Amino acid sequence: MAKQEDQFKKVLSHAKEYGYVFQSSEIYDGLSAVYDYAQNGVELKKNIRDYWWKAMVQMNENIVGLDASILMHPTVWKASGHVDAFNDPLIDNKDSKKRYRADVLIEDYCAKIEGKINKEVAKAAKRFGDAFNKEEFLATNGRVVGYQEKITTILARMGKSLENEDLADVKLLIEELEIADPVTGSKNWTDVKQFNLMFGTQLGASAEHSTKVYLRPETAQGIFVNFLNVQKTGRMKIPFGIAQTGKAFRNEIVARQFIFRMREFEQMEMQFFIKPGTQKVWYENWKENRMKWHLSLGMGADNYRFHDHDKLAHYADAAADIEFQFPFGFKELEGIHSRTDFDLKQHEEYSGKKLQYFDHEENKNYVPYVVETSIGLDRMFLAVFSNSLQEEALENGTSRTVLKLPAVLAPFKAAVLPLVKKDGLPEVAREILNDLKWDFNVFYDEKDAVGKRYRRQDANGTPFCITVDHQTLEDKTVTIRHRDTMEQSRVAIADLNAIIKAEVDAKAWLQKM
Amino acid sequence: MAKQEDQFKKVLSHAKEYGYVFQSSEIYDGLSAVYDYAQNGVELKKNIRDYWWKAMVQMNENIVGLDASILMHPTVWKASGHVDAFNDPLIDNKDSKKRYRADVLIEDYCAKIEGKINKEVAKAAKRFGDAFNKEEFLATNGRVVGYQEKITTILARMGKSLENEDLADVKLLIEELEIADPVTGSKNWTDVKQFNLMFGTQLGASAEHSTKVYLRPETAQGIFVNFLNVQKTGRMKIPFGIAQTGKAFRNEIVARQFIFRMREFEQMEMQFFIKPGTQKVWYENWKENRMKWHLSLGMGADNYRFHDHDKLAHYADAAADIEFQFPFGFKELEGIHSRTDFDLKQHEEYSGKKLQYFDHEENKNYVPYVVETSIGLDRMFLAVFSNSLQEEALENGTSRTVLKLPAVLAPFKAAVLPLVKKDGLPEVAREILNDLKWDFNVFYDEKDAVGKRYRRQDANGTPFCITVDHQTLEDKTVTIRHRDTMEQSRVAIADLNAIIKAEVDAKAWLQKM
Repeated sequence: MAKQEDQFKKVLSHAKEYGYVFQSSEIYDGLSAVYDYAQNGVELKKNIRDYWWKAMVQMNENIVGLDASILMHPTVWKASGHVDAFNDPLIDNKDSKKRYRADVLIEDYCAKIEGKINKEVAKAAKRFGDAFNKEEFLATNGRVVGYQEKITTILARMGKSLENEDLADVKLLIEELEIADPVTGSKNWTDVKQFNLMFGTQLGASAEHSTKVYLRPETAQGIFVNFLNVQKTGRMKIPFGIAQTGKAFRNEIVARQFIFRMREFEQMEMQFFIKPGTQKVWYENWKENRMKWHLSLGMGADNYRFHDHDKLAHYADAAADIEFQFPFGFKELEGIHSRTDFDLKQHEEYSGKKLQYFDHEENKNYVPYVVETSIGLDRMFLAVFSNSLQEEALENGTSRTVLKLPAVLAPFKAAVLPLVKKDGLPEVAREILNDLKWDFNVFYDEKDAVGKRYRRQDANGTPFCITVDHQTLEDKTVTIRHRDTMEQSRVAIADLNAIIKAEVDAKAWLQKM
Repeated sequence: MAKQEDQFKKVLSHAKEYGYVFQSSEIYDGLSAVYDYAQNGVELKKNIRDYWWKAMVQMNENIVGLDASILMHPTVWKASGHVDAFNDPLIDNKDSKKRYRADVLIEDYCAKIEGKINKEVAKAAKRFGDAFNKEEFLATNGRVVGYQEKITTILARMGKSLENEDLADVKLLIEELEIADPVTGSKNWTDVKQFNLMFGTQLGASAEHSTKVYLRPETAQGIFVNFLNVQKTGRMKIPFGIAQTGKAFRNEIVARQFIFRMREFEQMEMQFFIKPGTQKVWYENWKENRMKWHLSLGMGADNYRFHDHDKLAHYADAAADIEFQFPFGFKELEGIHSRTDFDLKQHEEYSGKKLQYFDHEENKNYVPYVVETSIGLDRMFLAVFSNSLQEEALENGTSRTVLKLPAVLAPFKAAVLPLVKKDGLPEVAREILNDLKWDFNVFYDEKDAVGKRYRRQDANGTPFCITVDHQTLEDKTVTIRHRDTMEQSRVAIADLNAIIKAEVDAKAWLQKM
């Protein structure tokens, strides 16, 4: 745990120090749960987005793109259920005037009991040494079994009460457990109230002529309302998909864990429209396809796992997450959902327009079913960044910090470094730069000793360093150094483009799918 | 004028019919002044964005990117002046309850007088025939001179009153001119009030703990507040630039002209930080550079012109627009502004943080000056789209609709078409598609006669059609047809990639700069 926290702290400081992520409005002491992507971060984010777009849209004849607006007609969110049901249960402490998510207070209480269990386990492990059997201990130790039962009982009751919207019982539970304000210790609570997570704003000028609209809390609805327009003007045949990347906004009360859960975030979603009855096949198909996409980046199969949902959202008949091992444990990275015809039927009802597809083979109209793949771009950024950040012990006893980003995603593909700042080497280096930059994002650095510059590029995630030295002037060769292996070899300037392309081109990576 | 309106109508209907732009939330009868980019539009928009990014960031060693959030600390907008001064003067009609921009009512009144002048000119031109001298007539005809003087007087008074925030006089002017509600004819007006154009929303959950924040009305401030973080972590030396693309929002009262003026829009901005005193040189430099970028797209030098501002915004010491000939006349497409140190100094004052650069050559600290280039991505989209849409008379007496998009920007680079849907031609066509799609966005179409498919691709803007016929099976050649010339030639399948790349690669286009 301590090691995890430590790694997460390193991620945060490296992201700032190397120009990947800054706190939003930092000079004004920041805006809670909102971040900016800095000069390297913007390129990494763009490369992830492009890699997804290429795999989903460009490579698939039957998937097209879309870029719907953030502001939409307010009835969209009535139809989708967000106006009525996109809520968090909140509770205020009357003394401290602080506000909390009621379910999080209860979950934190359970986490504390979990902590006691862990302590008992650690104690027993120490006592019994090699003879310790954790599974057996958890199943038989009376105190530990009691703790576990308590957690199960509490969470089951909370789950049921929230499902039944019995907020009075959620408050009662907090009182029975004697949960106190974590900051002040006060137990003087208000009632629990539902709070809608959508950001609202006013469109138009006057109270009379203005309309309350929302910042979209998800991009999916922009695809649903455009489904028929895209299908008709694009002459699409089922099965087909519509893909979109874009910002969404949620007024999270407890926004934690850096860019993992932000109030402003970016989604990459694809809605796949299919014949009713074929959803099981397509659901499995997309689960597999999306996992292959992740694995193509070579970040370690052990870092991914599926989590199939037992409890399904009202619109879904099957749902699974692809979870990734973040510095704070396995968490949702992407969701694959079989959404049935729920959304399109809701929009039919609320808009009064038919949203049906005429199937020539079947010779009939129907509302298509939908299988969705939905990934958080910021989470993907965090997954890639945290997984790539490594501290490596070197043979000479020192260590280096290296950001082993998949080369296809790295902000800069190469750095061109003149060995010294004289003898015409900078001029030759710039010639190489000026040639390569048509095809790749390339960095130029002539400051400090070359070893120091290598370390900087390692920490920046640049896959190749190209060093121009005196031999270059004679035979038009340079040394090329590989970030991950630190191996160097001598190659002709004329071959650089092909060498770099072979390692950074999306084609080479996507072919691993 | 009628011809212009006609062309604009064609642009609107073509954009919808061919999947470029849809009205937002159309099934709910739309959201005013908000649009969605459809399956082809999203690709065109992305290609424009990438072309700008490549020219500005990738090709310039001293310009880096940024992706700041839409939500920022509210004090940012105090410092920038938007909270106090980003207003439109509005007036309500008491009878109709309709709301108008007071300045637009007055400008529309002047436009009517302008119409009278045009009528007099037309009449005189008809009367005098070849002997008619328009300049002389405008300068000497008593009635026309009177009209012109009236317009000048009205606009001067309005300008002065708005500048002095004398809104009572603006109302008085409307009453004196007896301007009526254009819909109902009523002259029963309220006072004129200033209305802020920023969209506001609440961050956080309760009235007590929430903060009023704004959707950014421009992306520039995200660059200013991050200036020092980028400079330090990126070790940037002045002069250097920070570039950014992203959404901005303005609660426009009079939002007109399709995607030209929207409430939600996307900007592509670059702030160039320089030594004080060098701003004239850099301002001229960026004016020239940006014009070259536009001209590289080959949309006709006659369609662009500079418009130097006589009246400068409070933050500027020089400003010019690059205007483009839209279907509704020459209008602003991009702005180049010499913003001095106004913004950074304001943020120093409001944040209490130093935003200075230490210049090693000068051996002193200073707040840099800024030259900005700011282009509306949606306007650029409209410029490209409307300029490319052409109706061409053909030799055989028929005509065709062709969208002559610059090939580097076209959504699809090629379409692969089997001549007939049998004899194994579709299979070969798909093999070609599967090979090309790694590098280009490629379309597949096997439906209808090939001539009809060519027309569809012409209207879609696809630069190349590749037709697979029976000869292909024998000698591995295909016909390639060029959209603009309609010329066809027979080429080897193995050469297709290079032929397409030569015409669509950004390098070939940017080298024209």
